[in-house]
Amino acid sequence: MISVVLIGAGNVATHLFKAFSLSNQASVNQWYSRTLKSIEAYKTQVEITDNLSQLKDADVYIIAVSDDAISELSSKLPFEDRLVVHTSGSVGIYDLDKKLKRGVFYPLQTFTKGADVDFSTVPICIETIKKTDYHILKQLGQAIGSKTHRVNSDQRSALHLAAVFVNNFTNQLYRVAHEITESKGAEFDILKPLILETANKVQDLSPYVAQTGPAKRNDKKTIKKHLKSLDSEHHRTIYELLTTSIKKTHGTSTGSATKRSITKNN
Amino acid sequence: MISVVLIGAGNVATHLFKAFSLSNQASVNQWYSRTLKSIEAYKTQVEITDNLSQLKDADVYIIAVSDDAISELSSKLPFEDRLVVHTSGSVGIYDLDKKLKRGVFYPLQTFTKGADVDFSTVPICIETIKKTDYHILKQLGQAIGSKTHRVNSDQRSALHLAAVFVNNFTNQLYRVAHEITESKGAEFDILKPLILETANKVQDLSPYVAQTGPAKRNDKKTIKKHLKSLDSEHHRTIYELLTTSIKKTHGTSTGSATKRSITKNN
Repeated sequence: MISVVLIGAGNVATHLFKAFSLSNQASVNQWYSRTLKSIEAYKTQVEITDNLSQLKDADVYIIAVSDDAISELSSKLPFEDRLVVHTSGSVGIYDLDKKLKRGVFYPLQTFTKGADVDFSTVPICIETIKKTDYHILKQLGQAIGSKTHRVNSDQRSALHLAAVFVNNFTNQLYRVAHEITESKGAEFDILKPLILETANKVQDLSPYVAQTGPAKRNDKKTIKKHLKSLDSEHHRTIYELLTTSIKKTHGTSTGSATKRSITKNN
Repeated sequence: MISVVLIGAGNVATHLFKAFSLSNQASVNQWYSRTLKSIEAYKTQVEITDNLSQLKDADVYIIAVSDDAISELSSKLPFEDRLVVHTSGSVGIYDLDKKLKRGVFYPLQTFTKGADVDFSTVPICIETIKKTDYHILKQLGQAIGSKTHRVNSDQRSALHLAAVFVNNFTNQLYRVAHEITESKGAEFDILKPLILETANKVQDLSPYVAQTGPAKRNDKKTIKKHLKSLDSEHHRTIYELLTTSIKKTHGTSTGSATKRSITKNN
């Protein structure tokens, strides 16, 4: 049984608390928040505190607070040489105070406030300085059903950055699609199966192989028609940039007519 | 039982043929292709032809050829006043020859060559000039298990354009993410659950509500770090444009620190 002290009261901390509570290989000894009120609802299930000097012993301390607060919080911990991890994709491992055994336990997933999280769909990227620390964090990830991945700092940064593209930016494209359909009185809902299938497709195929559409086959007529029908200058800029990007990837800046029939859809 | 003649040998025609073959409410009387060879594999299952003058009677003729070929093909059909539809998102209904009863039967989904299609996940957008033609096309869509949606030309154009954003452009963002992870020796596969969850999330929430991340919370420090770590000028341009787009949508051009903790993840 791996014992944990949770530090922080946000989304990640709350989802981790619930997952650890359901696990029989990990348990939360204590939960710290600067504002006790934010975790008061859990006080029948776990010891809560707002006093760092009263932190209990544990195998792993998990700091799940906003990126900017991690470093300072770690320096205030009233002990040395214990395993302390943060959960951020973008904060360095060396931003944790050097008196500690340092690590990162980064769940690479988007969490919805209120909705339950199935950690079997949450890959956890683990970074440690010492190999023995890695093993305990790997066990901790497995204790909540997650797949764990050992990464170095560069890889974690790359994953965090790439996650912005596949999550935030992709979601913004959904938003633009919503604006486009709404402006013509069409239902955004009709696009939902396509959204799902687009995500499903790259579970098995590389995005390169999965690509279709007017930009890939350099279908100038359709591209022109689309640009003309976009009312928003901003939407046009996005359309042009991503069309250029696809052409760049697929070398179709000078497309041939024969390619057209092969890649017909969308 | 609705009888169909299929015209064309591409991806859409082939998937429709398979779906109609499985249905007990629709049947394919004949399949036409300019090049008989491309549908020869099906000749034991259906009558095939490469001669337009030999087309048989049917309730619906489905032209599933490349966009540029639709208009000319329709004008070559050796009959009048029969229901003829094309399957394109972007070609006008009036591009079909006016001697015909004209319609559009547009499956709004991405098809993978070779992979089977479950038409229950394929919304079909139907456009007709006459209401009676609409009803038969609706039945035809239902015969293969699809949900059908009546749309007008503007709505269909908007959906086709929006589909490019949620399918082709989204897939290109996956591709950029692949390039970013690969360049640092990180596994793209770790992003796959996030890709799926991002698509899942907007099945229930609007993209506006589903948004998270540094751009939404105007986290300048992370944005700056990301831009610095992007090696490709092209990737930086995409990052900047979509960050601006998210800020525009969420009015976070001048974000406040208090928003930060609420929207922590990614």
